[in-house]
Amino acid sequence: MYEKERKELYNAHLLLEKYGLVAYTSGNVSVRIGDHVLIKPSGVPYTELKPEDFVVVDLEGNVIEGEKKPSVDTATHLYLYKHLDWAKSVIHTHSTFAMVWAILEKSIPVLCTAHADVFGEEIPLTEYAPVGSEAIGKAVLKVIGKSGAVLLRKHGVMIVGTSVDDAVKKAIFLEEVAKAAYFATLAGKPTPLPPDEVDRLYNQYHTKYGQK
Amino acid sequence: MYEKERKELYNAHLLLEKYGLVAYTSGNVSVRIGDHVLIKPSGVPYTELKPEDFVVVDLEGNVIEGEKKPSVDTATHLYLYKHLDWAKSVIHTHSTFAMVWAILEKSIPVLCTAHADVFGEEIPLTEYAPVGSEAIGKAVLKVIGKSGAVLLRKHGVMIVGTSVDDAVKKAIFLEEVAKAAYFATLAGKPTPLPPDEVDRLYNQYHTKYGQK
Amino acid sequence: MYEKERKELYNAHLLLEKYGLVAYTSGNVSVRIGDHVLIKPSGVPYTELKPEDFVVVDLEGNVIEGEKKPSVDTATHLYLYKHLDWAKSVIHTHSTFAMVWAILEKSIPVLCTAHADVFGEEIPLTEYAPVGSEAIGKAVLKVIGKSGAVLLRKHGVMIVGTSVDDAVKKAIFLEEVAKAAYFATLAGKPTPLPPDEVDRLYNQYHTKYGQK
Amino acid sequence: MYEKERKELYNAHLLLEKYGLVAYTSGNVSVRIGDHVLIKPSGVPYTELKPEDFVVVDLEGNVIEGEKKPSVDTATHLYLYKHLDWAKSVIHTHSTFAMVWAILEKSIPVLCTAHADVFGEEIPLTEYAPVGSEAIGKAVLKVIGKSGAVLLRKHGVMIVGTSVDDAVKKAIFLEEVAKAAYFATLAGKPTPLPPDEVDRLYNQYHTKYGQK
Repeated sequence: MYEKERKELYNAHLLLEKYGLVAYTSGNVSVRIGDHVLIKPSGVPYTELKPEDFVVVDLEGNVIEGEKKPSVDTATHLYLYKHLDWAKSVIHTHSTFAMVWAILEKSIPVLCTAHADVFGEEIPLTEYAPVGSEAIGKAVLKVIGKSGAVLLRKHGVMIVGTSVDDAVKKAIFLEEVAKAAYFATLAGKPTPLPPDEVDRLYNQYHTKYGQK
Repeated sequence: MYEKERKELYNAHLLLEKYGLVAYTSGNVSVRIGDHVLIKPSGVPYTELKPEDFVVVDLEGNVIEGEKKPSVDTATHLYLYKHLDWAKSVIHTHSTFAMVWAILEKSIPVLCTAHADVFGEEIPLTEYAPVGSEAIGKAVLKVIGKSGAVLLRKHGVMIVGTSVDDAVKKAIFLEEVAKAAYFATLAGKPTPLPPDEVDRLYNQYHTKYGQK
Repeated sequence: MYEKERKELYNAHLLLEKYGLVAYTSGNVSVRIGDHVLIKPSGVPYTELKPEDFVVVDLEGNVIEGEKKPSVDTATHLYLYKHLDWAKSVIHTHSTFAMVWAILEKSIPVLCTAHADVFGEEIPLTEYAPVGSEAIGKAVLKVIGKSGAVLLRKHGVMIVGTSVDDAVKKAIFLEEVAKAAYFATLAGKPTPLPPDEVDRLYNQYHTKYGQK
Repeated sequence: MYEKERKELYNAHLLLEKYGLVAYTSGNVSVRIGDHVLIKPSGVPYTELKPEDFVVVDLEGNVIEGEKKPSVDTATHLYLYKHLDWAKSVIHTHSTFAMVWAILEKSIPVLCTAHADVFGEEIPLTEYAPVGSEAIGKAVLKVIGKSGAVLLRKHGVMIVGTSVDDAVKKAIFLEEVAKAAYFATLAGKPTPLPPDEVDRLYNQYHTKYGQK
């Protein structure tokens, strides 16, 4: 089932690894197809992962197809799909500098145009929530904005996208932005971009950028 | 049209990616050939980019050849080609440590010989200018010096070169220099090289270095 | 002898290099098979290492098979195998940010869930002990906890695993955690996770995560 | 001439690039063979470099074989070969964290065992000396110790080795050590290893480590 989506999801995992956003077994990407969700199996190293390893679950978490156990983060992914109708792909990473902000318990201010372009807002921070239940999903819903990118307090990153490509792109840019903002803030007191300029950049980027 | 230049531009984009100066879709390189400019299509990921994707535009921005939309930064590239007769290639990146200086709203002082060799001056900082119009081009022209490298305030980097190779080399060295200068400045108060030594190094490098 | 284990060990060394945890010749992985231990030869660069280069020694350090000299860290590996019955693989690295904590003579606090999941405790720090005798092994035994990961004061990292995969995974995550904890601590005063939450996460991860 | 040495030198340059110690055209390695020295041509990018590009010069700098101009650092390499009879290979890089120490005008203290093992002493810092004459060679000779590794003030790194492998290894470890020492010093006041322990580690490493 879902051969095309399996390949897309496989390539997404490889991209996250190539950009250093995940390490060995950590992180996972899922994609929603109707009432089904295709997701990474739990704890499988990227060096061994194959397209046929992804697990198909329904929105209640029942395994529909697949011989492996789905990611322990499946409940979080499903909660987001059920409560955000625009969610077509979800990514979870512990990418280093996003995690540093999450450990510092600070949202990421909009310090550069790339941040405004792609996200259009501060990257918000959830309350602390334990892994494996719906608690993380609920905590994400409380703070998630139009960007679909959220810092999980003391934990990592959750990204919601309108497609796998959209989610991958946001995961990559979030770490870029988190890293630049970290080092700028470490060395000085950078001024955030004004909110109306952030809005203008976001709207321009989301209407004029790309091939559609 | 321009098969050789398409290949050169393609390799330039790959080099920027290899050196980590661009991420996923960000950044772009263009090359001027007479009254035409060959430039990256907007928002195409590096993983999908092909030599035939580059768009040929004239100096007014009219698409001469290509099925894709050119980069949203095309107006900036064209402005620079029209106002700097030595400009044969332009590169735009958000490379991390150059961007950190841009976020901190500081030009990069000449702290090491490699900076003096390649650039021969502080890397200047533009005023803040919005993407997509000629505003960035104008802001660059106000501060650009002989190095052809400029920090865009709160945004990133603009490089003007006398060839694609020249621009690529400057993009790579700018990030090297920005990173070393950042960490030196974070840990101490490094003294810049004296201006006459900077001039001497720059002149020596631009007359004796390389194969010409 | 031990063709399968040689291949496994070879891949483990490649993974450590891929993740940047070892440089050129540094670092080594061993695996215990009954009363034998297979270990990296001393000072062989990763670019030249071959599966047949690994040396088989007994638990007293006598070479059983192999034309090369075993690692100078062999005595440490053997000491750990003899005193920890659950030790099936040992890894030694100088991975950068773990080494920074070791140079600073500080254990790594549990600042994020990934640390709690994989290690379940602070990464402890040994007293200073000289290389090449049993002194490092003894120093490790004094502080090693359930995580199997230890910082060697002024030196680097020692990892004990229940399998090669387990040890590799801990070596990779230790550097991830050390890096994030370093940068968070550099920029602020992050609060460690509460001990009971650390225990809960560790137990959950070690019972529910992965495919077994 | 010197086919074997050309290949060895080529691989050395590739290793420096793989470890991120050089960028695009920067850095160079040479090897001495009797009264001849084989060295990188000036300004040739690593992406284009071929074994047949290396230039053979005599100890006075006369080109014996080769169609390209030798590195602008040739005079420095030759000066070191003429004044240090154990010098068989010389490497020059601008590797990032070594350069940060050079910009800060500080020698690198011996903070970890890997530093003591490989170098056995602080990495000394030269006075400032201009590129391209014998001035850098002279400045290096004034401070070089048994380690063969020297920081060039405001410039970069010069490594002298007893073989290409020895020089490459020291170039790689110098950056490792420079990076760890930088970040440890940024976050605290680490205590250097005592001089007698540094001597002991160095002597042990240089008699017991490796395959000879």
